[in-house]
Amino acid sequence: MQPGDNNQRYDLFSPTTMPLAAAFLWNKQLMVQLNCRGYATAQFMQPEPAKYAHAPNLEAKTFMQPEQPYYAHHPGRFVYIKDEQSAEVFSVPYEPVRSKADSFVFSSGKSDIRWQLQQQGLQLDWQLCLSPDEPHELWQLTVTNLGAQPRQLSIYPYFPVGYMSWMNQSAKFQPELNAIVCSSVTPYQKYPDYFKNKLLKDKTFLLAEQVPTSWQCAQQAFEGEGGLHAPDALQQTELDGGDALYETPACVLQYRLQLAGAAKQVYRFVFGPALDDDEIAAARQRYFLTPDGFAKAQQQYSAYIARGQGCIQIETPDAALDNFVNHWLPRQVYYHGDVNRLTTDPQTRNYLQDNMGMSYVRPEAFRTALLTALTQQHSSGEMPDGILLHPDAELKYINQVPHTDQCVWLPVCLAAYLAETNDTALLQQQIAFGDSAEQATVFEHICRAMSWLLHKRDERGLSFIEQGDWCDPMNMVGYKGRGVSGWLSLAAAYALNCWADTCAQLGELSLAEQYRSDAQSFNQAVNHYLWDGKWYGRGITDDNVVFGISKDAEGRIYLNPQSWAMLSGAANPEQLQLMLAEIDAQLATPYGVQMLAPAYTAMRDDVGRVTQKHPGSAENGSVYNHAAAFYLYALYQINQPDKAFAVLRQMLPGSTAQDCLQRGQLPVFIPNYYRGAYQQFPRTAGRSSQLFNTGTVHWVYRSLIEGLFGVKGCAEGLLLQPQLPTDWPQVKLTRQFRGAEFSIVMRRQSGISKAQLSVDGRLLAEPLISDIVAGRHYQVELLLPVSSAV
Amino acid sequence: MQPGDNNQRYDLFSPTTMPLAAAFLWNKQLMVQLNCRGYATAQFMQPEPAKYAHAPNLEAKTFMQPEQPYYAHHPGRFVYIKDEQSAEVFSVPYEPVRSKADSFVFSSGKSDIRWQLQQQGLQLDWQLCLSPDEPHELWQLTVTNLGAQPRQLSIYPYFPVGYMSWMNQSAKFQPELNAIVCSSVTPYQKYPDYFKNKLLKDKTFLLAEQVPTSWQCAQQAFEGEGGLHAPDALQQTELDGGDALYETPACVLQYRLQLAGAAKQVYRFVFGPALDDDEIAAARQRYFLTPDGFAKAQQQYSAYIARGQGCIQIETPDAALDNFVNHWLPRQVYYHGDVNRLTTDPQTRNYLQDNMGMSYVRPEAFRTALLTALTQQHSSGEMPDGILLHPDAELKYINQVPHTDQCVWLPVCLAAYLAETNDTALLQQQIAFGDSAEQATVFEHICRAMSWLLHKRDERGLSFIEQGDWCDPMNMVGYKGRGVSGWLSLAAAYALNCWADTCAQLGELSLAEQYRSDAQSFNQAVNHYLWDGKWYGRGITDDNVVFGISKDAEGRIYLNPQSWAMLSGAANPEQLQLMLAEIDAQLATPYGVQMLAPAYTAMRDDVGRVTQKHPGSAENGSVYNHAAAFYLYALYQINQPDKAFAVLRQMLPGSTAQDCLQRGQLPVFIPNYYRGAYQQFPRTAGRSSQLFNTGTVHWVYRSLIEGLFGVKGCAEGLLLQPQLPTDWPQVKLTRQFRGAEFSIVMRRQSGISKAQLSVDGRLLAEPLISDIVAGRHYQVELLLPVSSAV
Repeated sequence: MQPGDNNQRYDLFSPTTMPLAAAFLWNKQLMVQLNCRGYATAQFMQPEPAKYAHAPNLEAKTFMQPEQPYYAHHPGRFVYIKDEQSAEVFSVPYEPVRSKADSFVFSSGKSDIRWQLQQQGLQLDWQLCLSPDEPHELWQLTVTNLGAQPRQLSIYPYFPVGYMSWMNQSAKFQPELNAIVCSSVTPYQKYPDYFKNKLLKDKTFLLAEQVPTSWQCAQQAFEGEGGLHAPDALQQTELDGGDALYETPACVLQYRLQLAGAAKQVYRFVFGPALDDDEIAAARQRYFLTPDGFAKAQQQYSAYIARGQGCIQIETPDAALDNFVNHWLPRQVYYHGDVNRLTTDPQTRNYLQDNMGMSYVRPEAFRTALLTALTQQHSSGEMPDGILLHPDAELKYINQVPHTDQCVWLPVCLAAYLAETNDTALLQQQIAFGDSAEQATVFEHICRAMSWLLHKRDERGLSFIEQGDWCDPMNMVGYKGRGVSGWLSLAAAYALNCWADTCAQLGELSLAEQYRSDAQSFNQAVNHYLWDGKWYGRGITDDNVVFGISKDAEGRIYLNPQSWAMLSGAANPEQLQLMLAEIDAQLATPYGVQMLAPAYTAMRDDVGRVTQKHPGSAENGSVYNHAAAFYLYALYQINQPDKAFAVLRQMLPGSTAQDCLQRGQLPVFIPNYYRGAYQQFPRTAGRSSQLFNTGTVHWVYRSLIEGLFGVKGCAEGLLLQPQLPTDWPQVKLTRQFRGAEFSIVMRRQSGISKAQLSVDGRLLAEPLISDIVAGRHYQVELLLPVSSAV
Repeated sequence: MQPGDNNQRYDLFSPTTMPLAAAFLWNKQLMVQLNCRGYATAQFMQPEPAKYAHAPNLEAKTFMQPEQPYYAHHPGRFVYIKDEQSAEVFSVPYEPVRSKADSFVFSSGKSDIRWQLQQQGLQLDWQLCLSPDEPHELWQLTVTNLGAQPRQLSIYPYFPVGYMSWMNQSAKFQPELNAIVCSSVTPYQKYPDYFKNKLLKDKTFLLAEQVPTSWQCAQQAFEGEGGLHAPDALQQTELDGGDALYETPACVLQYRLQLAGAAKQVYRFVFGPALDDDEIAAARQRYFLTPDGFAKAQQQYSAYIARGQGCIQIETPDAALDNFVNHWLPRQVYYHGDVNRLTTDPQTRNYLQDNMGMSYVRPEAFRTALLTALTQQHSSGEMPDGILLHPDAELKYINQVPHTDQCVWLPVCLAAYLAETNDTALLQQQIAFGDSAEQATVFEHICRAMSWLLHKRDERGLSFIEQGDWCDPMNMVGYKGRGVSGWLSLAAAYALNCWADTCAQLGELSLAEQYRSDAQSFNQAVNHYLWDGKWYGRGITDDNVVFGISKDAEGRIYLNPQSWAMLSGAANPEQLQLMLAEIDAQLATPYGVQMLAPAYTAMRDDVGRVTQKHPGSAENGSVYNHAAAFYLYALYQINQPDKAFAVLRQMLPGSTAQDCLQRGQLPVFIPNYYRGAYQQFPRTAGRSSQLFNTGTVHWVYRSLIEGLFGVKGCAEGLLLQPQLPTDWPQVKLTRQFRGAEFSIVMRRQSGISKAQLSVDGRLLAEPLISDIVAGRHYQVELLLPVSSAV
């Protein structure tokens, strides 16, 4: 079996030229990010995100951060290999010894992460898979003797566990479990926390299939003066068998191995957190004492991930695009909807968008999520800042700061779900509010959300921003209660129009008319107060200063108001042309479209936190992909297929080797941003944040469905209105839709002036396939005029 | 100048055999702990403790922790030295290269920390001093060519700065300052924090006297694939001159140096935090642009530390004791009283004891502290759990958990101050309460505190423990409101007796009598409910279970109730003998007396957090020096001079080389604990916590004054009642007391049956020197019978 042959292998890169290249796996309990050097970041849920392998010092508990630096003692998963004859040592995959392998493959599979190295006449295959249902890492090492001579080796799996707790930490090898068990007590000050902490999985274990020759459980005793790159303990014939008593725990095993020429040996391990020894014993029973238990769990995990297939499979002139769209994009969408970014209180806007993406993967997830969110809505119509997903959950971090945009996302995200499913019955379901037992239909809930948006306007008709909208850190524009948001006013208009469409679909025509009129009043107010001549300003501060406009030296133009003016209908054709030109001139970079420019280099008190962020990082002048994705979506809305495709192509992570090197990013996920501030700081521009939590992917997927390939659902059936790049002669795709499968060929044909759609050989008058029968397979051909996309 | 010649040098140790040996310096703004390898932990106040050199990852903000592990990328202060001809590299002092020097001296001075190495024909002197009044580290490197041939060297000071902030971090060399300036923004979520954060010193700078050849400001660019032990950048002729843009900052300078045979070169640097460039420019002006500015600051810092001399200088048969008592013990006392452990909300008990120690160093500090504490007392008499020392301060961590012992410490600590100063006027001072503008005398304040202790008793006459007393983590004995504390009941009795003594001294005889009677009622209740046959139990839980008694398998005996029963008068002579024997049998170890035994190995729900701590660490079965110091003090109270001296001697940190090796502790401070659980875990027993924050030192100093040397003050003057070990023939000491100086010789003389005191050649009838005249010098001789101390 080749590394990663269940999907893609990326053997272009060495750990030295691609030091940050990373991949991730998850299940409902666990998320593991591994980089190509072997460094790992893992969190599991109990119910809050927790660590079982720690930093070597007391590490802050916080939300996931971008661009986290690695360092020698960072958590990781390593194996030292010692040739007992020559005493030479190297490590798999690369850290901590950092010696160069003869060949090195880092392979990201959909349900596993693998390395294959050849070094010192050996081949090492090192593979991680997860349990389908427990926070367990399943590791497998295969050592192959590539030569004809027998080898005398020592194999040392080394799993650092780090500084577990200042209150109590220890580790020892327990023969009855054939595991190193590290124990700790989560520190606390107030006694009520004790009763909660009793249920925490405070143990970390490394469970082995084979009985080791020896072991060491204390980090410092293992390392000695040699350092991690040359631990003292490896100079001994056998490890000491030591324990850790309040010392920093580590899991180190030693297997002495006589390996005949051309022979191979397989080792298996399970690493993870546990409440007690019984849980570890149960894991041993499941994976190692049940025949094929380990392999079965691997298969179950593959099946679990396979349930996250998307609804299109494509074959285009762009092979890298095909690979990303067919495999990695729906996987990343699925990850978001499956585990909600491993938080118990997702931001409302994230929760709705992450589940919007599930409309294309497992639509029932969106249905459940919408009902969950709306039962936490206030009866006033206001949506809370976060949605609580666990009885013990509470609003944390940024969710404690009031934001004003949460209502916007309801009709916007619902539209995607309805297009995909036509499940209008959902709107008639009766549910309660968060602050009242009063029951109301989903329809009524969303009407109240729209009323809330209309209510929270100033006398000019613009939306108050308070301490933030999307994006979050614009916290001082309106904290005194007067400042307004241009983006939010446009987003409210777009939301109202989306909701008007749904109302119209349901036959509520007068309501639809009213909402369209409300949307127009927002658009008019924005055009009156915020059109700056060539683009829209971002907002107006408490002190009545319009910002994001031509007279600003920094933060002169923001992308979001432009994109959403395209979506909301605020911009007329002349304004559209002016905006597009300014976006190209001021925001476009070789790595994508910046969120704002020029990036702020100093705090602007009347805008706030975004202006204190580092230029080019996170929201301040970065290529913030979530914003870029709305620009992409908007470009399809205004029929700009070539411009849209260029934006899409820049967003795809490192699909060429050179691009990968610049961005530090493998083509397995879209990060939340690429570093921007290209004009100011070209050295670092384009780097990936390495953070795969981002609403970007849902809008990219929606843009593919509704825009690029134009295979969008509607009440009657499936519309075919692609916006292919003008230089694409042909596309093939398979579309799963409402239980049926459509094999579609789209081909440019000279001599026709409008698109021609045939289904199962029958020419249709309109680009619409109606009366779809679930379970059926349709053969579809769409002929397009050569110039149709222009 | 020899390393550390202003005080003591400790050249017994190499960094590999003594990996944890550490020393510390402080001023009002800053505390720096450095270990012999070069790793550093530093905090400064603004007003809360803050870092300017960080971990390489996001580090938790917490109170200082014991036994913190070091790791490759831990903050430190290093210099790489490269021979440009041979390309060989080593580092000063030891980390990160870890190559063995020909000679290595780590020297802890009172006002500096120094290393002297000889390696590769060079001598390197590396010295830290602090600014007297700013959070600035003053570093000096002297490179001496020991050979006759000229050397071509590159000198690279390397000050890692770490992960400053996920919001904004950067670094660059600023030629106009001749400094590397690292900038960051402290992250926050809520806008009101912005206004506080504006005043934070978010910059870290390395200011140099000489212009460097080149520099590097980004950690990763410096290190490359070589790792910290062999950074890639050192292979280049000159560093890149690079900056850090949201990358982990580091301060690396390069000086290319042609050094003639026998020549030397001195480099000077200042490292620390700053608000802005102006502060850095001012530092440059002060230290490097003013003639002798650097040396003057060093001298001022020495003078600052010299103000912390104690009130005795001794010359005994025990040279290690002399060294510790004459130099290091008063310095550690002074540190506590000077900066209150670098917190803005010291625990009330710590605050009072830390200032009690100042009675022997700078008595006016105690006066101020007592008034500060009492103005925060509730008018009910209750004392708050912490004393707020800054307008923005708030109760944090353990101070948010209610404890019941805070009132005890008022009369107990005051007694030491009054003995030293006879400042009874303090008691008549009128001050307000924390919750009322009502004025009352200090005397009345303390009477109310005593009433509070009497009020918080159950029907048996025992003190409620609620969520803890001293020590803190016994949080579940009484959280339901019924459990009581044996120790606290005894401590209340002792406090009442202390206060009765003060009342009597003031002529308030009937009050004195009442308080003595109250004390007796506490003692009687404890004897009735908690005497277990051979020792006192620790308390009675909410569910009426007595614990700390013979039927307990773990936590069978606690030291504190025994010591305080000696102090309070609860124990009769027979009980005393039984207790002493059990302490010897159950609590004594080669490294001191444990706080409790056997250490708990599992949670006991009805005792609480202490039982979850690691056995032998912190309070659970450790040699907790603060408890041992009370045992010491109590032993002198019951006239056990030889037993007391043995306890004292065990507490002194590593005064022999072998002892240092076992404990990892230089003889420059007493740590808060040595690891205990000697019977259960002998491998780790005796190790030092390395944490120098501890009330221990004040009680050791008081035990020296009142017990060992018996030179205690009273209303009339100075009493001389030593309790010398029986095998000491003679002691000389100088005692500073109420402005006068006493040169005292204590000598055993055969043939006398009671002590004979002469002052300036005149024999006195009583062991009391009265009518002391400030400014005078007294010659004192005290002849002691040979068996007097038995």
